[in-house]
Amino acid sequence: MQSLTSITELRQALSALTGTVGFVPTMGALHAGHGRLIETSVRETDFTVVSIFVNPSQFNDPADFAKYPRTFDTDAALCASLGASIVFAPTAEEMYPAPQQAFVEVARVTEDLEGKFRPGHFRGVATVVMKLFQIVQPHRAYFGEKDAQQLAVIRRMAADLNVPIEIVGVATVRDPDGVAMSSRNQRLTGAERTIAPLLYQALQLAARRIERGGRDPESIKQEAVAALAHPEIRIEYLEIVDPDSMQPVSKLEAPVRIAIAAWLGSTRLIDNVLAQPRS
Amino acid sequence: MQSLTSITELRQALSALTGTVGFVPTMGALHAGHGRLIETSVRETDFTVVSIFVNPSQFNDPADFAKYPRTFDTDAALCASLGASIVFAPTAEEMYPAPQQAFVEVARVTEDLEGKFRPGHFRGVATVVMKLFQIVQPHRAYFGEKDAQQLAVIRRMAADLNVPIEIVGVATVRDPDGVAMSSRNQRLTGAERTIAPLLYQALQLAARRIERGGRDPESIKQEAVAALAHPEIRIEYLEIVDPDSMQPVSKLEAPVRIAIAAWLGSTRLIDNVLAQPRS
Repeated sequence: MQSLTSITELRQALSALTGTVGFVPTMGALHAGHGRLIETSVRETDFTVVSIFVNPSQFNDPADFAKYPRTFDTDAALCASLGASIVFAPTAEEMYPAPQQAFVEVARVTEDLEGKFRPGHFRGVATVVMKLFQIVQPHRAYFGEKDAQQLAVIRRMAADLNVPIEIVGVATVRDPDGVAMSSRNQRLTGAERTIAPLLYQALQLAARRIERGGRDPESIKQEAVAALAHPEIRIEYLEIVDPDSMQPVSKLEAPVRIAIAAWLGSTRLIDNVLAQPRS
Repeated sequence: MQSLTSITELRQALSALTGTVGFVPTMGALHAGHGRLIETSVRETDFTVVSIFVNPSQFNDPADFAKYPRTFDTDAALCASLGASIVFAPTAEEMYPAPQQAFVEVARVTEDLEGKFRPGHFRGVATVVMKLFQIVQPHRAYFGEKDAQQLAVIRRMAADLNVPIEIVGVATVRDPDGVAMSSRNQRLTGAERTIAPLLYQALQLAARRIERGGRDPESIKQEAVAALAHPEIRIEYLEIVDPDSMQPVSKLEAPVRIAIAAWLGSTRLIDNVLAQPRS
């Protein structure tokens, strides 16, 4: 496996490859969820490129950027063990040699959920992913469904800007108690980790209600929120949205995504599940 | 020469080519200025793709869009005669099958000149050019220096988003009396056409002042504006700007671009020249 930090070197290495290229963009601190993305890419393409770049422009909170975990050596070892061909880990100076003036903005699908609570976040995400797409020019790119709105934003960006890359969503990997894998889980205290499963349980509760014929999104959300009544949990949103537009639904007729963001102490976690209303 | 309207067919045709691809994006109504772009591309690359698409999203004024000249058959014949390999002329439905949600926004370089007087124009231009870049994936793309701010916007977009395409600026083609070639010249009345040369003459006057040691941008602009005092000319802007940032300069020390937009009757014309201050 090659480990590269320069765009020029990466492009040279890529131009020497003959075959399909899969791309897994990450911010490092890799866990089993990233592992599944890399495994899927290695299985489906000839060469897998993993980028590791903690992108400053997608952090609306500088403190969150500062404390985001950085574990490069472990990350690179995991990529190698899973069969990645190239790890690309540029510096911020390499990615942003001058103040960035061009941005990719995606409307509508960014309006609610994370877009509402993290102003500028998706502009930063869409812009850096577009930059990485132009640098790597892969055939397929892999994103986790845990970040469902991010996946929807990237799908919209790729479709609307005619990006010739297949966007692949990969199922969320969970701990045995249901907690979605996240680099931010490292920051939870022991006590916080014991209550973290409540988030997924509340999402499952709402999904069951919908699948068993529930028709009123408001009452289902209220029930799920009530199940999260705990002094250490502060819910930022819990919404039932259309999976493509990521906008709240008023009727339960087609598949929906139930999405949550909540603070456990000083750590913000997100999660989501799909639910299919009973017809 | 192939004439194609579908993105899928274009991609198939392009994938069959072996060699470098040059791209000339146009809105049709081709004139000698476009001709020079195509000739340059044909000379410098193996295959030249010319797109003809009157992009609705870059017209801030619907009336301007409606009356923009459409001359496809003549355009295609010119492309063929100059050695283009493919003309790509999609419909608006092909380019925008769903309401566009993803946009490329370029800050700073779009703030003044056209950006100030045509709100949304450069968002439309940057977005459609990015779409066309992703569809055609050329090695080089050719733009006229007559639209100097557009060229600066595309250069900034390509640099900031790591687009792997070389952006080539091509010198403005002028009629013998100095009028810059423009599809909009067709709309001028005979009387308007006789006064159109005044625009370039005013730009040349300002350039001479700068090249002969003029140091005060304000007084040079005022002199150029005074030279355009004519009842049929309404100046929208006449500015001396930095050629990269396209922002007005307060000192004349490095090369500058002198840019004008003016109405002759109901037709809006733009033009610009470079000037090198005396050191």
